[in-house]
Amino acid sequence: VRHKILELLREKKPSYISGEEMAAFLAVSRTSVWKSIQALQSDGYVIEGSPRLGYRLLIIPDHLYPAEITGNLHTKRIAVNREMIHHYHQVESTNTTLKNLADKDAPEGTIVVAEEQIGGRGRQGRFWLSPPEKGIWLSLLLRPPLPPQDTPVFTLLAAAAVAKSLKIILPELAVGIKWPNDLLINRRKVCGILTELKAEAEFLHYLVIGIGINVNFREKDFTPELRKIATSLYLENGRKNVSRQRLTSVLLNELDKSYTELLSDGPRSIIGQWKKDNITLGKRVVVKNVREAFEGKAVDLNEDGSLIVEGKNGIRKHFHAGEVTLVPMNGG
Amino acid sequence: VRHKILELLREKKPSYISGEEMAAFLAVSRTSVWKSIQALQSDGYVIEGSPRLGYRLLIIPDHLYPAEITGNLHTKRIAVNREMIHHYHQVESTNTTLKNLADKDAPEGTIVVAEEQIGGRGRQGRFWLSPPEKGIWLSLLLRPPLPPQDTPVFTLLAAAAVAKSLKIILPELAVGIKWPNDLLINRRKVCGILTELKAEAEFLHYLVIGIGINVNFREKDFTPELRKIATSLYLENGRKNVSRQRLTSVLLNELDKSYTELLSDGPRSIIGQWKKDNITLGKRVVVKNVREAFEGKAVDLNEDGSLIVEGKNGIRKHFHAGEVTLVPMNGG
Repeated sequence: VRHKILELLREKKPSYISGEEMAAFLAVSRTSVWKSIQALQSDGYVIEGSPRLGYRLLIIPDHLYPAEITGNLHTKRIAVNREMIHHYHQVESTNTTLKNLADKDAPEGTIVVAEEQIGGRGRQGRFWLSPPEKGIWLSLLLRPPLPPQDTPVFTLLAAAAVAKSLKIILPELAVGIKWPNDLLINRRKVCGILTELKAEAEFLHYLVIGIGINVNFREKDFTPELRKIATSLYLENGRKNVSRQRLTSVLLNELDKSYTELLSDGPRSIIGQWKKDNITLGKRVVVKNVREAFEGKAVDLNEDGSLIVEGKNGIRKHFHAGEVTLVPMNGG
Repeated sequence: VRHKILELLREKKPSYISGEEMAAFLAVSRTSVWKSIQALQSDGYVIEGSPRLGYRLLIIPDHLYPAEITGNLHTKRIAVNREMIHHYHQVESTNTTLKNLADKDAPEGTIVVAEEQIGGRGRQGRFWLSPPEKGIWLSLLLRPPLPPQDTPVFTLLAAAAVAKSLKIILPELAVGIKWPNDLLINRRKVCGILTELKAEAEFLHYLVIGIGINVNFREKDFTPELRKIATSLYLENGRKNVSRQRLTSVLLNELDKSYTELLSDGPRSIIGQWKKDNITLGKRVVVKNVREAFEGKAVDLNEDGSLIVEGKNGIRKHFHAGEVTLVPMNGG
């Protein structure tokens, strides 16, 4: 009932619709209408009630409610119905919540979004600051019929899809991808991606791709250390708020388009898209992994997602994993 | 107390030791000694009790009890103490049990062994017949500091370690590895390996390597269809029983040696060992995966564990995953 009441109010907006009319139209009691209005109000919808005119919807909260996202989706695999979007006001971590759903056989394309993560995680268990309503904290479940060796391409896919979405919404911002999947604006991180997987040696059970975007953080929302290396769309966008709902819809559409392409045509177009938006290739880098810290020029991205770095002696190494630092090249 | 009583009985075997002496030596009550003897008897140890002479150990059951395995281990990482060996009479699946332990932070080198699996699984969820006391149903937990892309090498490592162990115990049997990790004797499967993993895109959380060896199956222990493609050590060994305890100890030692080598020297020696015992390279094969069924000659094993197959037209393909069928090559 609640969803239907919301749809009626939305259609009539900014005019009034009477409780009686809604009750009759939906064949429910007046009490049921009244309860739904109460529930919507406690969800943050500002609904004005007038004894004579009825109800009207004044403000839609910028929460990532399924009802506010699905309307703008034209996806084939991801969040294709409202039941596949699990919205929470607060979770430990959207990845953890989604992995639990995945273990209980949630279908491919299921997503978890939360207003706040209290135990948000980045790569290798690092903390990811996720205050309420300041960002998009979203996880996506995929079950591609592929071996786990193909996982890196999905991380590139996610990074490229976020870059594309930001370009659509904020075309004036210069967003660049640092290998493999950090998104930077003016050398500061605005988005991180954490892909987790469960698999057999040759067969993926599932991938959970967690995407964290710093959307409407003010300076004070960062810790002082974090502010040196992180930024938000708000801060980079001339201190204007960005609609999390709109960005989420655009992002889900882009993810869906790229995933569909990947399944039908293989990784080529993903790799191409990633290369177009990357700020790593051609740069001097240091790649740190468990074995070494290797300095050289990032010369290319391999088809399997690995970064090809050429050392001083001309030797080329392929990195599947590692932490990249961009080295300033004074004088080229 | 029970473990200590068992050690005393084992030391004295085949002579007697009195309950009084054991109680005094271990500084426990006579009742406590008596209870331990009862417990050992119900575990299958045949212990004779004589009012005048005391107790003596007559028969050690061929169960995979930690106490019967650790004595012969000289491992550095795997099952380095009794607490790291979890023995069960019956489990759903040793991999599932061990994944639960891993999720609760069990240390690297933890193993699960069971006398029987009632829901034993092979690759891609296929059923794996695991009747009580007929096989070795064992899972091993590793936490290598590597990206998930390196997983296939661990599967090769496990296959090569089983092959090596069988050669040590039954040198006259011709055991061959079919890529990636099936062990065959006379073209019939005697061992399967199921590696499962939890990871981030670039960082393994853990690997669980499940090893199932058909040890003392009689013909009647197989279904008629299974008998066509599967065999057991008993059947291939002139119908003589093989000690599961001895094979388990030898296997854990070999796994430990190879794993230590892999961590220090990289995959080269593992690949070499695998190649020495494989029956895939040089053969005509069909590799089936989700995309295709490709026929050609298996020409080499790549350093990352992928199989290189050369098709009719001379094109070489690398397979990370797939089902290999060996094609008979009449006349070469």
